[in-house]
Amino acid sequence: MANSYHRIVLASRPHGWPTPENFRLEEVSSAPLGEGEVRVRNRYLSLDPYMRGRMNDAKSYAAPQMLNETMGGTAVGEVVESRSSQFAVGDTVRGMLGWTEYGVSKAEGIGKVDARQIPLSAYLGIVGMPGMTAWYGYNKIMEPKPGETAVVSAAAGAVGSVVGQLARIAGVRVIGIAGGPDKCRYVTEELGFDACIDYKTAADAKSLAALIAAAAPKGVDAHFENVGGDVLNAVMTLLNPFARVAICGLIADYNATPGQMMKSAILNPGMFLVARFKMQGFIISDHLNRWPEGLTALAGLVASGKLKYRESIADGLAAAPAAFIGMLKGQNFGKQLVRLY
Amino acid sequence: MANSYHRIVLASRPHGWPTPENFRLEEVSSAPLGEGEVRVRNRYLSLDPYMRGRMNDAKSYAAPQMLNETMGGTAVGEVVESRSSQFAVGDTVRGMLGWTEYGVSKAEGIGKVDARQIPLSAYLGIVGMPGMTAWYGYNKIMEPKPGETAVVSAAAGAVGSVVGQLARIAGVRVIGIAGGPDKCRYVTEELGFDACIDYKTAADAKSLAALIAAAAPKGVDAHFENVGGDVLNAVMTLLNPFARVAICGLIADYNATPGQMMKSAILNPGMFLVARFKMQGFIISDHLNRWPEGLTALAGLVASGKLKYRESIADGLAAAPAAFIGMLKGQNFGKQLVRLY
Repeated sequence: MANSYHRIVLASRPHGWPTPENFRLEEVSSAPLGEGEVRVRNRYLSLDPYMRGRMNDAKSYAAPQMLNETMGGTAVGEVVESRSSQFAVGDTVRGMLGWTEYGVSKAEGIGKVDARQIPLSAYLGIVGMPGMTAWYGYNKIMEPKPGETAVVSAAAGAVGSVVGQLARIAGVRVIGIAGGPDKCRYVTEELGFDACIDYKTAADAKSLAALIAAAAPKGVDAHFENVGGDVLNAVMTLLNPFARVAICGLIADYNATPGQMMKSAILNPGMFLVARFKMQGFIISDHLNRWPEGLTALAGLVASGKLKYRESIADGLAAAPAAFIGMLKGQNFGKQLVRLY
Repeated sequence: MANSYHRIVLASRPHGWPTPENFRLEEVSSAPLGEGEVRVRNRYLSLDPYMRGRMNDAKSYAAPQMLNETMGGTAVGEVVESRSSQFAVGDTVRGMLGWTEYGVSKAEGIGKVDARQIPLSAYLGIVGMPGMTAWYGYNKIMEPKPGETAVVSAAAGAVGSVVGQLARIAGVRVIGIAGGPDKCRYVTEELGFDACIDYKTAADAKSLAALIAAAAPKGVDAHFENVGGDVLNAVMTLLNPFARVAICGLIADYNATPGQMMKSAILNPGMFLVARFKMQGFIISDHLNRWPEGLTALAGLVASGKLKYRESIADGLAAAPAAFIGMLKGQNFGKQLVRLY
């Protein structure tokens, strides 16, 4: 255990898009552990869109990130020091350990993960929060039936890719929306979606709706929204009666400046009456009691090769800010991680 | 049975607000009944906001009203001629009989109503479609628990007044939104809502939200929307986690011209994630299987005096267009009817 380590703190709050200057890499001294605490050498950091919301000093579902404190976030790694009887040196664990080489947590804030059957990094992705988010939204809100049509935005991403594969496995016609031909090819050829729309080829919500409509001749029965903006407005015009829309993320707006018109304003709420659909926001941390059920389902599908996933890996702590900003711009491909060693 | 009768047809489609010129009162000859048909002398016509949507030639949940055809709508009246074994002259019935002195329907299109315990007109209101709409939205979408806070827009109207009274009876704190001091006084003093906000005293959604917030110190757990626009945007900012929003009507937009920015655009869909709420549109005609259950509940509450209602009655068929336009502008007080005799 080193006497000092590196971490990344929030140096300033962004106005609109975050920049590298909003972050600061610094070296700090290790403090002794308190009773019941565990020190973890982080191996992979998870970068997630929700972190953008926490960088604002505004009401949201998560408390704001404090200035000059270690950027919060989930990580996986190895226990290097323990003052808890529940963890021993060498255990592989996951927890809210932050953007740091060494994280400290109370024992109740971390959990052991079994990295023998499934790679350690997957506990930040397909069998972690993104996978569980997909599983919950798919099964508890979208609830598509075989033969129905579902749409998923950010279809090549860590969450969307799982939603679409769950649909495909269940016999649901599934249309992805993603940015660029490479992602669309991955979504259809590797993940097995029935179709994928490159939203970059559509000038506006109307032309995007026309592209989706061509791939969804029977309309849309369920939708999983990660993006918002034109995507949501386009899909809303295609919903069949009694459709279900799960709102997981609205990344199109995360970098809006205060007072700016939200890109994802829902322009035609009359569709709520035309199609009598349900739209429901959710956050997986409200539903941790479902984790065992979801983990069992996902781990089984991963182990049997029915669920595929991809990771974008940035190397070294210093690479985290640029990787995070790139992810917000859609430059990642699958789950965005930072590998520390 | 007269050889001719009067009816009102749709003469032209409105652009924006309807005008009296969009309607035409005319005299037509009576046609002989076909086998299985029934002729009804209409006593009360129901005027409802949904009719405005049908006046457009656009996709909606109901087929468009045809030009030069009798304006569609529910009515109650007395059978004057029958070629069905199911109905006898003198029966009191309800059905889609239209804006006409005499309506003709297949037997399966009408139903007998018992006007001995409950007045005939109430079958167009509190124990008719508006009452059932309130009952369904309250029980199946809002689902408020005792001690929670609910908001209802168009609180003095045929639907909103029932929603709020159901909440009050169940021990839910209920705040109405209505237009003008007379309606607000009725809502609190006669119907027993805990509070009522006169939306006309608010300049915009933000100031409306402040007024509602003052009456809802613990936030809003359930909302019943009849109006849309500023009202919906205001309430959305006050929703508690896991709130339920029933979208029954968006009357603020029914007179928008095509291409116009909808007043009820949902400006901050990020609230779906902040408060993880559900928003669901519904139309009672999708849920006719619930009618017996709802009717039993409502009729019991009306008979015991626990549910109050009010009617705005226009006299004579010729008064229907002006009464309809007035209702769209909020000039009615409770259920808007036209009395024919």
